Amino acid sequence: MAPPAAPGDRLDRVDTPALILDLDAFDANVAALHGHAAARGVRVRAHGKAHRCPGIALRQVAAGAIGICCQKVGEAEGFADAGIADILISNEVVDDAKLARLARLAGRVRLAVCVDHPDAVRALARACARHDARVDVLIELDVGQARCGVAGTEEALAIARTIAEGGPALRLRGLQAYHGGAQHLRSPAGRGAAIAAASALAAQVRAALRAAGHDCDEVSGGGTGTYPYEAASGVYTEIQPGSYALMDLDYRANEADAAAPAMRQALGVLTSVMSVRDGHAVLDGGLKAVSVDSGPPAVRLPGWRVRGVSDEHTVIEPLAADRPGTSGSPGSGAGTPALALGQRCVLDPGHCDPTANLHDWVVAYRGERVESVWPVLPRGASR
Amino acid sequence: MAPPAAPGDRLDRVDTPALILDLDAFDANVAALHGHAAARGVRVRAHGKAHRCPGIALRQVAAGAIGICCQKVGEAEGFADAGIADILISNEVVDDAKLARLARLAGRVRLAVCVDHPDAVRALARACARHDARVDVLIELDVGQARCGVAGTEEALAIARTIAEGGPALRLRGLQAYHGGAQHLRSPAGRGAAIAAASALAAQVRAALRAAGHDCDEVSGGGTGTYPYEAASGVYTEIQPGSYALMDLDYRANEADAAAPAMRQALGVLTSVMSVRDGHAVLDGGLKAVSVDSGPPAVRLPGWRVRGVSDEHTVIEPLAADRPGTSGSPGSGAGTPALALGQRCVLDPGHCDPTANLHDWVVAYRGERVESVWPVLPRGASR
Repeated sequence: MAPPAAPGDRLDRVDTPALILDLDAFDANVAALHGHAAARGVRVRAHGKAHRCPGIALRQVAAGAIGICCQKVGEAEGFADAGIADILISNEVVDDAKLARLARLAGRVRLAVCVDHPDAVRALARACARHDARVDVLIELDVGQARCGVAGTEEALAIARTIAEGGPALRLRGLQAYHGGAQHLRSPAGRGAAIAAASALAAQVRAALRAAGHDCDEVSGGGTGTYPYEAASGVYTEIQPGSYALMDLDYRANEADAAAPAMRQALGVLTSVMSVRDGHAVLDGGLKAVSVDSGPPAVRLPGWRVRGVSDEHTVIEPLAADRPGTSGSPGSGAGTPALALGQRCVLDPGHCDPTANLHDWVVAYRGERVESVWPVLPRGASR
Repeated sequence: MAPPAAPGDRLDRVDTPALILDLDAFDANVAALHGHAAARGVRVRAHGKAHRCPGIALRQVAAGAIGICCQKVGEAEGFADAGIADILISNEVVDDAKLARLARLAGRVRLAVCVDHPDAVRALARACARHDARVDVLIELDVGQARCGVAGTEEALAIARTIAEGGPALRLRGLQAYHGGAQHLRSPAGRGAAIAAASALAAQVRAALRAAGHDCDEVSGGGTGTYPYEAASGVYTEIQPGSYALMDLDYRANEADAAAPAMRQALGVLTSVMSVRDGHAVLDGGLKAVSVDSGPPAVRLPGWRVRGVSDEHTVIEPLAADRPGTSGSPGSGAGTPALALGQRCVLDPGHCDPTANLHDWVVAYRGERVESVWPVLPRGASR
C-alpha cells in the first residue's frame, strides 16, 4: 500500500492515521542526550526497538551513536540491511533457526548478543561453528527487573566459563545490565537509588569475572528514564536509550532529573475527525494506530480530551463535559473550538515503542511540511 | 521477511512469535454461527476487521457469508484484491483522497459505506460523480455506543434527503445499527436488553424513512457478543460478527447465551521460552505480538499464569507462586511441569482484532501440522 505522504506535502494533507515525527524536536532530543553522554564519557547505543525505523537509526548514528541495539534477530537483520554496522541484540536468542540467522548476520556487521544460561551459550557456539562465525557475548545480569538475566556472580562465572569453552567463536564483551523496572519510577530519587544498586551489582560481577581471568570491557544498559544515573555511575560504559528521541506520555510523567536535559515530544499519531456528534467527536485512529498499554493517548487539541479508544476510533470530548451546567456540545463550550469533518488532529501516544510498531511508515516533518517518509521494519521483525 | 512457517511444518517448529489459527476450531465456529443465522433468516457479513486476513475471509464466504465488512478503505482494497466481491465499509469515510479510492473501488466490487452527516454524503456524491461510480449507503444510527452515528429519526431523514439529492450515484441501502458497547456486557440479559432497545430504535427509524418514501432494505449490525439477539429481532437483516471465528478472552468472559452455540478458542500467539529463572520464565512475545488493551493474555500451560507483558517479553510464573511455603521455582512446584529453553508455548489473546494486526502472517494448522500460511493485510490498511 502507498505511503501516507510524500516529501514536500503539507502536514494537513497526510493520509491518516499516520505516524508523524517532528524533526526539530527529534534533532533537539538526539543532540541533548548524545551531548550529555559524551560529556560523561559513555557511549550511546540507541535502542532501535523504540522505532524499528532504519531511517531514524541512521540519523542517530550520524549524530554520534556508536550503533544500535535491538531485541530480535529480525530487527538486527533489518537494521543491518539498511547500513547499521554495529548492532547489539540486547536480549536472549535461544532457537536454533534464529541462531543460524544470527551467525550469518555476524559475517556482515559487528554483532553481539545476550545470554543468561549455559545451554544458550552452547547452542550459540554450535551455530557459530556451523557458519564459521564470531559473535560477541554479553552476560545479562538481572539488576532488578526480574525478567531475563542471571542473579549474580556465581551464575555469571559459570556462563563465562562456558563462553571460554566455546573457543574463538565467542568473545565475552561484558555485561548487559538494563533495569527496565526503574525507567518509570516517577521520582528522580527512586530512579537514582535503583541504578545505584544496579551499578553496585554490575561492578561486583565485573570484578569477579576479571579476578577469574575473564574479559569484561563493557557494561551496557540504561534507558530514557535512568540514563543520567548510568552515565554518572563510573561503571556503565554504554547507555541504551530509545524513547528519548521520540518520547511518550509515560516518560513525560516522570519527574525531571535536575542534571538531565528535558526531552520534547517528537512522535505523534496524526488522525482526522471522522464524526462530530453532540458532546463528542471521533478520530479515525484507534488501537490499531496507537498503543494503550501504558494508558490512553492525549489529544493535542486545547479544550479536548480523550474519552475512549476502540479498534479504529478514538472518541474525544470537550473538557467542559464534566462541568455541571454546560452542554458539552462540540464547539459550544466556552473556549472550545469547533471541529470540522476531516480536520487533522494529533494524538500523543502513551507508549512510543508499540505505537511505532503499528505503522508501515514514519512521516518526518519540519514545521508544516513533510521532509522524509521512512519505512518501519515489517511486523516480522518481531521474530 | 520470510513467513514463520510453511505448509507441512510441525507446529512446534514454527518460528516465534507467530499468530496461529486452529482450523478445526475455526471451522466449527464458522459452521455453528453461520448455521444459527441461516436458521433465523439473517445473512452473515463476516467482519474482516477482526483478522484483516483475506485467506480467512475467503473461507468465511465459502462457508456462506454474503461478503465481508471492514472499517477502512485500505482494508476494503485489500479484501477486494483477494477476490471478496461484496464489501461494506461499516464506518464513516470523510477524506476526499480516501473517497476517491472508495469510488474507484466501487467499479470492481459491490460496495457500501456508512454516513452520519449530510456533508459526508455530499463529499461522497462528488467523489462518485468524479469517478462515474455508484455506491450504496447505510445511514449509521447510534443505537447506544455513543461513538459515530445519528441519534434518531430527524437526522436520519435529513441524511436520506441528502442521499436522494445526490442523484443515481448514491443508493440508500438501509441502516448500520451496531451496538459496540453491548458486545461485552457479561450477562445475556444485559445484552438482550441492549439489543431490544437498539432493534426498537432501528425499526422506528426504518419506518420513518419508508413513510417518507425512502428505501431501507437493510438493517445491519450485531457482533460476536450480541448476534443471537439481532438474529432473533425481526428487524436486523444482516449480522456483522468478526471475533466469533477466532475468539479471545474478553468474549470468553461473557456468560453464555442459552440459545447460541459456544465458540472455541481458535486464535493463539505461539511463543518460545527464552529464559528460565528462579520463580518465573520468559516467553519471546510481548506487546508487539499480543494486544493487552482488554487485559493480559492467558498462557495455555497448566500450572502457569501470566505475571506481566512488556514490549518483547511475557513473564509467566507457576500458580504455586502465591501459595505460602512453596518456592515457586519453575518445575519445582507440585504438579508444575518443568520448562525447557526453546519450548513452544501458546498465549490466548485478550482481544483478537488488535492482536491479529500485529502479525504479517496467520499460521493455520490442524492438530500438530501447519496447513496454510496466509498473509495479513499491511498495517497501511488502517488508512
